[in-house]
Amino acid sequence: MIIVSEECVRTVLTEEDGFAAVEAVFAAMAHGDAYNFPVIREAIGHADALYGFKSGFDRAGLALGLKSGGYWPGNAQKGIPNHQSTVFLFDPDTGRLSSIVGGNYLTAIRTAASSAVSIKHLARPASRTLGMVGAGHQSHFQVRAAVRQGNFERVVAWNRHPEMLDGLEKTVTGLGLTFERVEPEQLAARADVIITITSCHEPLLMKEWIRPGTHLACMGTDTKGKMEVDPDLVAACAVFTDEIAQSVSIGEAQHAVGKGLLSEAAITPIGDVINGTQAGRVSEDQITLFDGTGVGLQDLAVASAVARKAEEQGLAQQAGL
Amino acid sequence: MIIVSEECVRTVLTEEDGFAAVEAVFAAMAHGDAYNFPVIREAIGHADALYGFKSGFDRAGLALGLKSGGYWPGNAQKGIPNHQSTVFLFDPDTGRLSSIVGGNYLTAIRTAASSAVSIKHLARPASRTLGMVGAGHQSHFQVRAAVRQGNFERVVAWNRHPEMLDGLEKTVTGLGLTFERVEPEQLAARADVIITITSCHEPLLMKEWIRPGTHLACMGTDTKGKMEVDPDLVAACAVFTDEIAQSVSIGEAQHAVGKGLLSEAAITPIGDVINGTQAGRVSEDQITLFDGTGVGLQDLAVASAVARKAEEQGLAQQAGL
Repeated sequence: MIIVSEECVRTVLTEEDGFAAVEAVFAAMAHGDAYNFPVIREAIGHADALYGFKSGFDRAGLALGLKSGGYWPGNAQKGIPNHQSTVFLFDPDTGRLSSIVGGNYLTAIRTAASSAVSIKHLARPASRTLGMVGAGHQSHFQVRAAVRQGNFERVVAWNRHPEMLDGLEKTVTGLGLTFERVEPEQLAARADVIITITSCHEPLLMKEWIRPGTHLACMGTDTKGKMEVDPDLVAACAVFTDEIAQSVSIGEAQHAVGKGLLSEAAITPIGDVINGTQAGRVSEDQITLFDGTGVGLQDLAVASAVARKAEEQGLAQQAGL
Repeated sequence: MIIVSEECVRTVLTEEDGFAAVEAVFAAMAHGDAYNFPVIREAIGHADALYGFKSGFDRAGLALGLKSGGYWPGNAQKGIPNHQSTVFLFDPDTGRLSSIVGGNYLTAIRTAASSAVSIKHLARPASRTLGMVGAGHQSHFQVRAAVRQGNFERVVAWNRHPEMLDGLEKTVTGLGLTFERVEPEQLAARADVIITITSCHEPLLMKEWIRPGTHLACMGTDTKGKMEVDPDLVAACAVFTDEIAQSVSIGEAQHAVGKGLLSEAAITPIGDVINGTQAGRVSEDQITLFDGTGVGLQDLAVASAVARKAEEQGLAQQAGL
């Protein structure tokens, strides 16, 4: 058994690794080679914590296991991250625990990889302006991963608390792009690709604001009740997702589907687009929307890649069980 | 974070520890202080394996986490156990992984502790003859734990493959009790307490065979379709269980409930008997039945006790994550 610490994950895991692992596992899901097990998510009634597991098995990549963890809102004042997660990988041939991988940095990388995969497969190649709705911790990872997939020249950004935009500006200019603060309506009028990465419960972007040809990656909604964009906008888009079951229940599409504006059958798994078995964007004018809900298989795929690299580089701790 | 290996678990974990932890967590469940999360159990379509998680939170004992593992039928020929499990404990105050505990020996101890708790609280104190239906690996743990709870003088035993009884005889005589091989009907006619611990799918004990005053602990049925005793027998008993939801769906009571012979409302959580809020055995003639389905909280409770002891004794490995 090996242990790959958070620090070691930061050393070995690159955005390219994350992108390759997530793209491959979305393809495997669509081929029927990989599936997620039911998600466990519990408000435990202690320390206001949300705790649970995302798990699955990728027969193609031979990754079996779970990511366990949750959200402890009081952690920050103790100097530790509120989000806590760890990935446990098991040998699919014997069931024995093979690797324990720190899951905090990994989660940020895999979430950003997911929207980047959608940009590669769904955005217009001529996209030059990236709109960022949200400027929290995860937004930095989103920008970095997105910029690798396109020829973006500038970022237009909005955040409810404008002072958070300073940090995002630093990341964006560090990547050699220009940065501008805008209101949401203006953001929609200028962006070719929009990433939403907030914890909102009401629409931040309205249908009538979005230009033809835009690609949206809605990455913030992962729970019943959360919402980032107008359900009418979702209904008007060609909708793609990582996993349909999550998209319609806890993802951005939950509201459009719940109101009868969008049918589950109209949502396409991004893996089918990667595999070429279903069309992605069909015109320059189409508005595409990727509902990124976050699946356990992403975590397992990235953690597998990390464990392999850490072991090869002699950076993993060995432990006996 | 500490790691407690299988070997270390065998060194520190006693039957008394297992009994105390399981009795306490059954009591906490009945008080509403501890609850199990939904069970994940998947046939993964690789190596014929069954894989999954049992998890929960005990607010009283502050044990949060899961047991992960499963059954890999091809392991034995590789020289490793078919059953593989590991317990992961998290700090309920911060969500950080605190302990990894080898789960194989621990599972045997906690399963045996469960029937022993039922014997303490439900069997007649005058019980002298223990009937064992099943002589596999787990039966040895069952006998050892049961014998601690009563004044048993002899064991009468049956197993489908009689040659397996040699090993059980050795364990029983080693405990200072006499041992006799009998047919199931004869076993029922002589035993005061009967433990069934098999993987059967048809009844091994019929209603008309069981004597008044008998206590049965049915420990083998943990999946839809398994069955150890006549559903009419279950319906005729005062039925107790670790968790009602599991008892009626995957436990021994599934068949009696499914046939309408027993109502869910008639089943009593053993924790209520421990807490004194519901009656246990009400007469010398009553036939009591404990449906032991196995809950994640048992694993967490025992693993917590093990981790604490291993750390106190300086036997736990320290690891960084």
